[in-house]
Amino acid sequence: THKQHEAELRAVIDDLHPADIAYVLEALPPDDRAEVWGLVAPEADAETLGEVLLEASEAVCESLVEALSHERLVQIAAALDADQLADLAPLLPQAVIDEVTQSLTTEEREDFRAALSFEEGSVGARMVFEMVTIRDDVTLETVLRYLRLFDELPDHTDQVFVIDRDDHLKGALSLNTLLVNDPDATVADLMQTEIFTLHAEDDASDAAQAFERYDFVSAPVIDRRGRLIGRLTVAEIVDVIREETEEQVLSAAGLREEEDMFSSVWESAKNRWLWLGINMGTAFFASRVIGAFEGTIERIVALAALMPIVAGIAGNSGNQTMTLLIRSIALGQITPANVRRLMLKELAVALANGVVWGTVAATFAVLLYFSAPYVLKLGTVMFMAMVLNMLVGAAVGMAVPMLLKKLGRDPAMGSSVLLTFTTDSGGFFIFLGLATLFFS
Amino acid sequence: THKQHEAELRAVIDDLHPADIAYVLEALPPDDRAEVWGLVAPEADAETLGEVLLEASEAVCESLVEALSHERLVQIAAALDADQLADLAPLLPQAVIDEVTQSLTTEEREDFRAALSFEEGSVGARMVFEMVTIRDDVTLETVLRYLRLFDELPDHTDQVFVIDRDDHLKGALSLNTLLVNDPDATVADLMQTEIFTLHAEDDASDAAQAFERYDFVSAPVIDRRGRLIGRLTVAEIVDVIREETEEQVLSAAGLREEEDMFSSVWESAKNRWLWLGINMGTAFFASRVIGAFEGTIERIVALAALMPIVAGIAGNSGNQTMTLLIRSIALGQITPANVRRLMLKELAVALANGVVWGTVAATFAVLLYFSAPYVLKLGTVMFMAMVLNMLVGAAVGMAVPMLLKKLGRDPAMGSSVLLTFTTDSGGFFIFLGLATLFFS
Repeated sequence: THKQHEAELRAVIDDLHPADIAYVLEALPPDDRAEVWGLVAPEADAETLGEVLLEASEAVCESLVEALSHERLVQIAAALDADQLADLAPLLPQAVIDEVTQSLTTEEREDFRAALSFEEGSVGARMVFEMVTIRDDVTLETVLRYLRLFDELPDHTDQVFVIDRDDHLKGALSLNTLLVNDPDATVADLMQTEIFTLHAEDDASDAAQAFERYDFVSAPVIDRRGRLIGRLTVAEIVDVIREETEEQVLSAAGLREEEDMFSSVWESAKNRWLWLGINMGTAFFASRVIGAFEGTIERIVALAALMPIVAGIAGNSGNQTMTLLIRSIALGQITPANVRRLMLKELAVALANGVVWGTVAATFAVLLYFSAPYVLKLGTVMFMAMVLNMLVGAAVGMAVPMLLKKLGRDPAMGSSVLLTFTTDSGGFFIFLGLATLFFS
Repeated sequence: THKQHEAELRAVIDDLHPADIAYVLEALPPDDRAEVWGLVAPEADAETLGEVLLEASEAVCESLVEALSHERLVQIAAALDADQLADLAPLLPQAVIDEVTQSLTTEEREDFRAALSFEEGSVGARMVFEMVTIRDDVTLETVLRYLRLFDELPDHTDQVFVIDRDDHLKGALSLNTLLVNDPDATVADLMQTEIFTLHAEDDASDAAQAFERYDFVSAPVIDRRGRLIGRLTVAEIVDVIREETEEQVLSAAGLREEEDMFSSVWESAKNRWLWLGINMGTAFFASRVIGAFEGTIERIVALAALMPIVAGIAGNSGNQTMTLLIRSIALGQITPANVRRLMLKELAVALANGVVWGTVAATFAVLLYFSAPYVLKLGTVMFMAMVLNMLVGAAVGMAVPMLLKKLGRDPAMGSSVLLTFTTDSGGFFIFLGLATLFFS
């Protein structure tokens, strides 16, 4: 019966981790999602529901919030930490936020305001406020006793921070050090004083690189005066890395934002228009380049069949150069000292590839149009166009990310549009232009 | 003077983290790299050098290993843990490995053999053997005293594992629990018995998803009989995620492997050939499709200028569909229950986009060739071809990843080649075919 099914479903839900609940909800079509949420929401405690909302993607989270009453949302929001509340705030009704912030302590309210003020993509927007701090004049024994006062330590506590009376960060004591040393030793003797610190305004991607390189579990965040204000953990870093990847993959395909798998046709179509519009523009331009040589094509129609080869291969070759360069820029491997050398190398590779594949393409063209009187000219044009357009592809594939980087933008942003635009239009122009010269 | 420079360089190197040394070496051209390595190698201790080699990319690591003497390599290899030695083994001369393995204890040698036997991309290949194990019948006080016997705990120790006499994993005690509870309590009372475990044969990517979802710092690895054999840490998971991304980006551009920024022109060119060759093949095919309609193009040369638009936009639109689908498959959101619905939605989006952009393209074509007698026919052909090819793009964009998944392959592998192949050849065929019908 229906009642039985509900009871079973509830039993399953009780056993699930909040992240698993969010995952199940995301995979369900809207109707089923609403039904399951309708069973979960009244049953689970406020803390669990808060974690589900935080784990779900934005689009799904919105639909989940809509289904909850004002009172329930207030309960959920009240159970969140200040940084979590700030993460969820953009999706909550203002009335809920107003009611919850009124019941916060002064410190919590300050933390909440601070968390809201940090820019997306900054360390501040990712940090947590919960952490353990100690003084340096106590013994490890005292620290151990102090820790026993906690019900549990904050997640990802691999070190406790040593601060002075004014909250200035003086060092860190790892749990490792705390556990292997004599309890009578003092913190001052054992704490690490040369520690890696972050600022709230730092870029979260840069922080991720540091975590990757030095294998941190957590790192302290300080303000401009050196006072400890929070902590960044590897759990957030894993999210940063994953989101960066996703964004890269989605934006490479011209998708402006994450699409809920079940968002409406209309929303999905809108999400994809900007890119298709831009591509339409560049395709029209390339089409006009071809149009300018209609006279030549009319005389030698073989050109129409061969021209996409020239454009396509150079585009792919240029894309390889660009991908490697964007990667090197991201890894910080490009320096003024090596950039010249790198550019010469890439041009040399393009030239080599141009000669190899130009020969293949020219041979193909000659075999195909063997009986035509102009066959040798056609092969020569094909070869020259391939070599030249490969060089164009390599040059643009290097210039675009470098330029974007100089302008302080993401080197990957829109670079493939610009590249394809150049190798298409350029390829048609070079190939048909050479043909016009040779056959006139 | 040169001597002074050397002394300064050494001072700098001494302060650097091994990961930073590897990073600097990677950014240097081969000559400078050899020079710096020549200064670092004799100076640094074997452990540091080992870490540098482990951090460096494969191509760079190879060149670094070549510059070291047999004796030095043996020293370095002897300082590594069994799992690290297994990671480095493929790049070390056999003589070095033979000499080092002879000096290992039986247990270390077994660990080394085991680590070598795990497949790339498995949890086993990523796990570490170093960990802390305890019994369940002791008090926390005893555990604390036991931990003080260590010089330091293994990296990323956030929990110690509880095993029985036969090494069977019975539970885990987090340092958190150890630190906040009464030292007189026993391990059995406080250990977590329902814990997430991995098997050595598990896929490291799947393990990464679990780490992301549940925010683990470490997780135990057990064999088929439930015996604890090692541990996977979040530091490795971060690497797994980053490498997956890199591989995805590189293989999307048809680069077979990571290229050292300064590898030779010849090596680089070879690395890029497979892809360019495949693209050449598909471009030739598309060219033959056009060739089949040369008669029609000869009569209406405007078709040559317009055909790349039809092919290009459908390729981009299909790529959007494919990107979203590959992402949904990776997140495990595709189920037999929702796949039909998803496919209908994507086809609907493609139809909507086809109508919108088909109208734009047709209008453009009509305006451009306004004076021609066949202008209305041309607009109609353009519109119909756009709609149809967008549907082809969406269908192929969905079919290819689904099919690859069914065959047990990576859904992203080579999918963009197949897609472009279809939307290019299909686009030319549909557009020129329709034109031939309309204008005959």
